Amino acid sequence: MTDHDPAHAAVPRRTFLGASLATLGVAGCASPSADSAESTSLVSAGDVVLFQGDSITDAGRTRDTASQPNVQSALGRGYAWLAASGLLVQRGGDCTVFNRGISGHKVFQLQKRWERDCLALKPNLVSILIGVNDIWHTKNGKYDGTIEIYERDYLALLEETRAKLPGVRLVVCEPFVLRCGAVDESWFPEFDGYRAAARRVADAHGATWVGFQAMFDEAIRYAPAEHWAKDGVHPSPAGAALMAQTWLRAVVG
Amino acid sequence: MTDHDPAHAAVPRRTFLGASLATLGVAGCASPSADSAESTSLVSAGDVVLFQGDSITDAGRTRDTASQPNVQSALGRGYAWLAASGLLVQRGGDCTVFNRGISGHKVFQLQKRWERDCLALKPNLVSILIGVNDIWHTKNGKYDGTIEIYERDYLALLEETRAKLPGVRLVVCEPFVLRCGAVDESWFPEFDGYRAAARRVADAHGATWVGFQAMFDEAIRYAPAEHWAKDGVHPSPAGAALMAQTWLRAVVG
Repeated sequence: MTDHDPAHAAVPRRTFLGASLATLGVAGCASPSADSAESTSLVSAGDVVLFQGDSITDAGRTRDTASQPNVQSALGRGYAWLAASGLLVQRGGDCTVFNRGISGHKVFQLQKRWERDCLALKPNLVSILIGVNDIWHTKNGKYDGTIEIYERDYLALLEETRAKLPGVRLVVCEPFVLRCGAVDESWFPEFDGYRAAARRVADAHGATWVGFQAMFDEAIRYAPAEHWAKDGVHPSPAGAALMAQTWLRAVVG
Repeated sequence: MTDHDPAHAAVPRRTFLGASLATLGVAGCASPSADSAESTSLVSAGDVVLFQGDSITDAGRTRDTASQPNVQSALGRGYAWLAASGLLVQRGGDCTVFNRGISGHKVFQLQKRWERDCLALKPNLVSILIGVNDIWHTKNGKYDGTIEIYERDYLALLEETRAKLPGVRLVVCEPFVLRCGAVDESWFPEFDGYRAAARRVADAHGATWVGFQAMFDEAIRYAPAEHWAKDGVHPSPAGAALMAQTWLRAVVG
């Protein structure tokens, strides 16, 4: 968990949530007991929420509306949009959601555009999914990064984020692949090393972890790998829907 | 809320859920406080869960695998499948999920096949979404039902279900439309009457209510109606994803 600002956990938020859910005729989560602070929502009324990452986050978002929050075209068609719309509907639009994922990006490329595409937006919560290109792009010889470089750069990125955005809540999403399409046995065990590095980065910075690989490992019991991500990397609408559910459960509860 | 079988709310289920969520690295709902029994999950370990309805539930499910639970082809590609897969992944597959929605069906047609397509499966939880065809099919002169007939038949269906499946938990999903495609102003206020009738049916039988219309009414603030359901009736993948989130929140918490 990130440091949790007590001001954000105060009564008005829960009251609003309750009212919002009542409007939808929806039963919400129970009130947290004293020992389950980890289960409270990381998103509070008025928060700015930012999704960051590569093509999985980008998912066809429209660049010319990127400055407009809470709009589908600017949020794409992937898990970030589905999680954002679920969050917005659940909360009656009381937060501001941006997506700044860019297809093909690796962690060092996030770092290069972090001032403009993260810090300048002054997010209260930053959710990052990055890593699959850090390994994938080494396979065609266009990139020579390693797990060590990925971890070093990722740690530095979160260090900078926490230094420049005091009180920010961080969400680190686990890089994942399905064993189909472009993903063959040559990815392993190296890919597992990237996942482990992401977990260490999350733990080092007290970020909330969203276990997408474990989720997909379970999901393939009910539908083939190709159903969730035809090429093994980019989720189908069903894969994105499942990711959004898991993201919301981890971040909002 | 349905009558809640205390045996289903016992410790092992919560322990399993906790373990399952921990596997996914996911923060779950907080433990319910004493006054929030409505927030506990309606699904317990070993339960049989049945989705029933029309084309929105059917969503292209394969008939020749219909007897196999927990399989995507048998569960279709709509909200029922996305909710089922979310439920199964979250719970590590400890329940049995069927879909018996059939395109074009109205409530009286559910009644005709209830023995085979509901009672024989001995479900612990039955989720029903029915009503849009009860009004839609009157518009082309192929059906002469009314709100009164819909409500009478729906009440009788749930009466029979509770009588023959003691302890069953019922979920009534609100019929909904988006104002686009096939849905024009001629649908109103009559359609609102069908929604209100469904709500009365849910209340009369202590069913959990899933407010899909309120959900979509909020969702159109973030994306056009056509994004959620191009013809105003059948949800897009994004519409189905949002429905699954709302269903899970209402039913599982």
